[in-house]
Amino acid sequence: MRWLTAGESHGPALVATLEGLPAGVPVTTAMVADALARRRLGYGRGARMKFEQDEVTFLGGVRHGETMGSPVAVMVGNTEWPKWEQVMSADPVDPEVLAGLARNEPLTRPRPGHADLAGMQKYSIDEARPILERASARETAARVALGAVARSYLKETCGIEIVSHVVELAAAKAPAGVLPLPADEARLDEDPVRCLDADASKAMVAEIDQAHKDGDTLGGVVEVLAYGVPVGLGSHVHWDRRLDARLAAALMGIQAIKGVEVGDGFELARIPGSQAHDEILPTPEGVKRASGRSGGTEGGLSTGELLRVRAAMKPIATVPRALQTLDVRTGEPAKAHHQRSDVCAVPAAGIVAEAMVALVLADAVAEKFGGDNVSETRRNVQSYLDNLIVR
Amino acid sequence: MRWLTAGESHGPALVATLEGLPAGVPVTTAMVADALARRRLGYGRGARMKFEQDEVTFLGGVRHGETMGSPVAVMVGNTEWPKWEQVMSADPVDPEVLAGLARNEPLTRPRPGHADLAGMQKYSIDEARPILERASARETAARVALGAVARSYLKETCGIEIVSHVVELAAAKAPAGVLPLPADEARLDEDPVRCLDADASKAMVAEIDQAHKDGDTLGGVVEVLAYGVPVGLGSHVHWDRRLDARLAAALMGIQAIKGVEVGDGFELARIPGSQAHDEILPTPEGVKRASGRSGGTEGGLSTGELLRVRAAMKPIATVPRALQTLDVRTGEPAKAHHQRSDVCAVPAAGIVAEAMVALVLADAVAEKFGGDNVSETRRNVQSYLDNLIVR
Amino acid sequence: MRWLTAGESHGPALVATLEGLPAGVPVTTAMVADALARRRLGYGRGARMKFEQDEVTFLGGVRHGETMGSPVAVMVGNTEWPKWEQVMSADPVDPEVLAGLARNEPLTRPRPGHADLAGMQKYSIDEARPILERASARETAARVALGAVARSYLKETCGIEIVSHVVELAAAKAPAGVLPLPADEARLDEDPVRCLDADASKAMVAEIDQAHKDGDTLGGVVEVLAYGVPVGLGSHVHWDRRLDARLAAALMGIQAIKGVEVGDGFELARIPGSQAHDEILPTPEGVKRASGRSGGTEGGLSTGELLRVRAAMKPIATVPRALQTLDVRTGEPAKAHHQRSDVCAVPAAGIVAEAMVALVLADAVAEKFGGDNVSETRRNVQSYLDNLIVR
Amino acid sequence: MRWLTAGESHGPALVATLEGLPAGVPVTTAMVADALARRRLGYGRGARMKFEQDEVTFLGGVRHGETMGSPVAVMVGNTEWPKWEQVMSADPVDPEVLAGLARNEPLTRPRPGHADLAGMQKYSIDEARPILERASARETAARVALGAVARSYLKETCGIEIVSHVVELAAAKAPAGVLPLPADEARLDEDPVRCLDADASKAMVAEIDQAHKDGDTLGGVVEVLAYGVPVGLGSHVHWDRRLDARLAAALMGIQAIKGVEVGDGFELARIPGSQAHDEILPTPEGVKRASGRSGGTEGGLSTGELLRVRAAMKPIATVPRALQTLDVRTGEPAKAHHQRSDVCAVPAAGIVAEAMVALVLADAVAEKFGGDNVSETRRNVQSYLDNLIVR
Repeated sequence: MRWLTAGESHGPALVATLEGLPAGVPVTTAMVADALARRRLGYGRGARMKFEQDEVTFLGGVRHGETMGSPVAVMVGNTEWPKWEQVMSADPVDPEVLAGLARNEPLTRPRPGHADLAGMQKYSIDEARPILERASARETAARVALGAVARSYLKETCGIEIVSHVVELAAAKAPAGVLPLPADEARLDEDPVRCLDADASKAMVAEIDQAHKDGDTLGGVVEVLAYGVPVGLGSHVHWDRRLDARLAAALMGIQAIKGVEVGDGFELARIPGSQAHDEILPTPEGVKRASGRSGGTEGGLSTGELLRVRAAMKPIATVPRALQTLDVRTGEPAKAHHQRSDVCAVPAAGIVAEAMVALVLADAVAEKFGGDNVSETRRNVQSYLDNLIVR
Repeated sequence: MRWLTAGESHGPALVATLEGLPAGVPVTTAMVADALARRRLGYGRGARMKFEQDEVTFLGGVRHGETMGSPVAVMVGNTEWPKWEQVMSADPVDPEVLAGLARNEPLTRPRPGHADLAGMQKYSIDEARPILERASARETAARVALGAVARSYLKETCGIEIVSHVVELAAAKAPAGVLPLPADEARLDEDPVRCLDADASKAMVAEIDQAHKDGDTLGGVVEVLAYGVPVGLGSHVHWDRRLDARLAAALMGIQAIKGVEVGDGFELARIPGSQAHDEILPTPEGVKRASGRSGGTEGGLSTGELLRVRAAMKPIATVPRALQTLDVRTGEPAKAHHQRSDVCAVPAAGIVAEAMVALVLADAVAEKFGGDNVSETRRNVQSYLDNLIVR
Repeated sequence: MRWLTAGESHGPALVATLEGLPAGVPVTTAMVADALARRRLGYGRGARMKFEQDEVTFLGGVRHGETMGSPVAVMVGNTEWPKWEQVMSADPVDPEVLAGLARNEPLTRPRPGHADLAGMQKYSIDEARPILERASARETAARVALGAVARSYLKETCGIEIVSHVVELAAAKAPAGVLPLPADEARLDEDPVRCLDADASKAMVAEIDQAHKDGDTLGGVVEVLAYGVPVGLGSHVHWDRRLDARLAAALMGIQAIKGVEVGDGFELARIPGSQAHDEILPTPEGVKRASGRSGGTEGGLSTGELLRVRAAMKPIATVPRALQTLDVRTGEPAKAHHQRSDVCAVPAAGIVAEAMVALVLADAVAEKFGGDNVSETRRNVQSYLDNLIVR
Repeated sequence: MRWLTAGESHGPALVATLEGLPAGVPVTTAMVADALARRRLGYGRGARMKFEQDEVTFLGGVRHGETMGSPVAVMVGNTEWPKWEQVMSADPVDPEVLAGLARNEPLTRPRPGHADLAGMQKYSIDEARPILERASARETAARVALGAVARSYLKETCGIEIVSHVVELAAAKAPAGVLPLPADEARLDEDPVRCLDADASKAMVAEIDQAHKDGDTLGGVVEVLAYGVPVGLGSHVHWDRRLDARLAAALMGIQAIKGVEVGDGFELARIPGSQAHDEILPTPEGVKRASGRSGGTEGGLSTGELLRVRAAMKPIATVPRALQTLDVRTGEPAKAHHQRSDVCAVPAAGIVAEAMVALVLADAVAEKFGGDNVSETRRNVQSYLDNLIVR
């Protein structure tokens, strides 16, 4: 399974292509649009999130509500495109016309915390527009679109279900050990910060309100849970086949993520071995584990227990109280460009993280079970589970 | 650049192959042997580390001290092989002979915290030997061997130097902000726990001594620093080209790692945006950053500042005070196999993490600068730096 | 460099995404539209080629006539889409509506020579529509679109130019040794069968006329030439890095291609070694070769001489004089579906082959020279050529 | 599935690593040694083939005659190594010692038809030794070793069997349509040129004898047949998943191969569509095809019929009647180095081609059927065949 996304933040559309899915996966435009709507959730988002509409069009791979085995391509249109048609035109535009457009003014004060400066240097471009257009978190809409497709595949073949929640937002923390179930999704989506605990949610909202007053921004930590993951996804045999390594790349590959944990993560480094591991218990219902500390992976393999990973998001880098930078035209100190007014994108990051986890698991399922039609993959999964050497 | 390792813990040898390196990289057997010796460092290691000798042989890719552009293959022999020749024989062995060997006894009590159980289930094998032989951290010797080669490439082409240290060991922590330089390597290697701060080192040693008494094991956190990384490695344009994502996979892909951070990582999620980002400062010596919080990456790109990443290692899973499991032959509760007596492998994990960082950076350098001879790559690097649009 | 295409023959659009191109490559919509128009050339094409219009839209990666370093995505709209909107709808359609549509009738008589039968079996789909929609040569429009982008990159960085011609069409052959120059492109495109030799062209047209009368179809052989390829693309060090192997996959990966040759190909197998190889001649203008038999590759590397490859296309499999098959509903013998009326697609295959060669060379150039802006890659190419150890 | 080979012609050993094989594949040292012995077969080989012994050692992945799921690494030792220990030493050697060794003399007269010149230019090395050591066909021993492992996997999971024969040798041709069965392998291996037809075999031997007298070398064409390939390997959905494209790369990626055909290949381009395709026939034993012209692939998918591919090998490039070149030290014309005395390597090329076909098919089987133990893959294959929508 392999996938590519393309498109700029203010371009005509984003487009995502996923190759390697079998035929027969149920997929609809509504399924993707719903996922994209969830990505716009969250207290502390700026105006754009509210008026932005995602127009979803499948360009390939899906017919009459089912995948065909061919690459799935989904286009997410940008309803703001008419305002940007000249600034972001693929074809050359009359320089005089461009000169009259405020939106086209070169962005020469790269923002700390963004790809702006390093991107300009790498690609040898003298303003930040071509960099930030692609580096923008808008691109995650393409991932969420494919994530919706991957989730349908996971559900159909293995019964896997994924849910995420916010566990930290700045200084506010959700109580440890509260793990939402897939059935809690609607409740979570209704909460302003996608936190299951009412008190923690209130504390998080208060953090955002305060930051808003301070002209500041906030980060936090999201946790993704995957229920129903069969034992044996990923592998210990090579580092890059390890499920945990693949999850780590997928989560760290989300804009603004600076830390990743599997299970209890950094906490496990601080407690002794006698407490850190998941003991193995034979039970009448089969082999179980005594704790969930490992997060459902051992030796780079899924254990068949609840999969649990976390990602730490730094605060939004476009800080209203503008940060120090330089103007690349003059080399003189300057205040960074400041285009957005979101305070906090952590709730949305959880939705993106769900999508990334879904895409990693889908890849791992396809690798282990093969199959070119959902029914074939499902039979292979069932046959594997029926023949497990230890249960 | 791509690489594969093979070999089992008690097999005849490990072998690692790296394809994609240019010609002209200085490499010697001694360089690899030294790297492997560093991997055996650290207070709290068991007997094997001491009597284990690594016999290094290049099977391909290197002639008269330089790479030739062909795949580099290095074999790390196992000096214990004569003891295991029958147990781990590739060819079938007379069952009667095997029956008489204690070492060959089926390992039917999978150890929590290891790949044992999930590996047996995935690969449908009724004992843990074929799983643990490959899942063992012995395999990291192959990575360290290639890491030594990658480091030589990085040094020759870009002047990059890598150093690591232990920043946490169980409850003991090194003071924040103490960052070793490449020149500190010898001092670090002499310290029993590879920690630069004398007091912290003592506290860490005390933790190990206590755990040893308790029949317990410990984890910790290592930090890897790369000096001289040019701006623009990795890319913001696609999630899997992000340098931070690639580093996260590489570190999480080390045995027993459960968490990864870039720069200040999780701490960044807990402070406001006005404090979390690296402001950009024009100086007479060129553009600098006000802090190192970002760890040297922004938007998935290296910034040209110090690269800094951390990995959290869980305690060794083979706990002397044996953990609860089942015997797969009977399905009855049992105590887990317990074969090793290390208390803590965190210092060694730093050496492995250095190797993984080197391999990721080497891949990113090759991708950005191309070149089939070190001199060609070096010219390309220099030409890029000479033409930087912002300096 | 990596790329994916998506989209079905009668879907809303094809879309192609290319990741890994540097910034600064000149690209316009017209450049791609022109390339697509060339793909519709050729005597012996059916009606669809004539009324089909390709609507080209860049969805990402290009701004104001230049690439930005981000993935380039180009959408090729299907002007016939309104006729197919229900038949090929991604979302479910009212079964009663579908039942009334002739176009939606299940295609249950798989055509020999197409993916129909094997595709239905692999993907477990009981009619051929979802298979043939993707297997159709319409998909090559997406490759030609990306090929135009790749050609611009090759021209800007290395001065490489690509031209193709038809060397065999059924029994008619172009005289040996006539090699068109890039400057001949317009002349070739005006020729009804893209053959440079007037007599051979007439013979080819006569073959097509006869086949048309006979209700039959024809194949042929195209040759692609790349001028200006620098020495040292590809590599001898691993089979899958060989330039010839990559070209072979790219050409054999075009619909209906059944044979591939580099240089004199199969003929080289029939002559002795003393005549088969390209002797090396020092000349005042540098090292030259005595013949072009090798096709510009030795040991899997480009030699710096003219690159020359050929692809053999089987006759169009949708034969008017319908072929024997079965009806999968009944298992009874039947005549194959017959939807198109092209006699011969060989001239168009040359255009597709040019695109595939361009994409392979672009990948090899990026691998050897790196660079994130065209100017950087160009500098690296020049520096390599200036430092060649043998000239 | 992925694999790498390493090692030089006169280095200590070749080593090949294959990652992605399930557990439970029967593999022994003898199996690999036998395959390597077959590679040394053939009339017209020089002295080296006769005294060369291949010492086979599994370094990883295999225990007691079965794969473990971990990477399989096999080392093929070079019995001539003691003669080359200093010339090909990885570590630096005393220059005075080297100066006294004839074998170490710089090879400054690159041979036409080899990688020598282009390799020296690409890698910026002033003599051919480091190039030809890797470009040598000796490297194919590593592929044949892995091919033996892949064949065991194919046989165990799908019952696939592979056989090859020589169909052309210079001007001598085997009669069309004679297709050896797997059971013919021993007979073929006994024939001096691995040709099934006695008269053709004699004519081929005569060609070799004549070339030997003439101080010349010869090429030819080999054909590989794979019996028992299930329908649906490869895919039409993307060019690089097509089975024919993958086979083409694998065959063209063998040293000295300049042309590749699937089924009737170039001949199909010369006959009309009504004769070129494989009609589909329902029979009491299931769906069959009327001819084998397609070579067992349609639309990039295996059809379930006999897979048949051909590769054209140019004559050995080291021609006794030495070819014209230059001396790179002086830039003056010179005669090419001439180190070997083989007249023809076509019979051996068939063995290498078998290995490459096996590796491609193994990859395609793993992709379609998944499975981490041979028994799991076998179940998945059977379940697929039992549920075929058309039989």
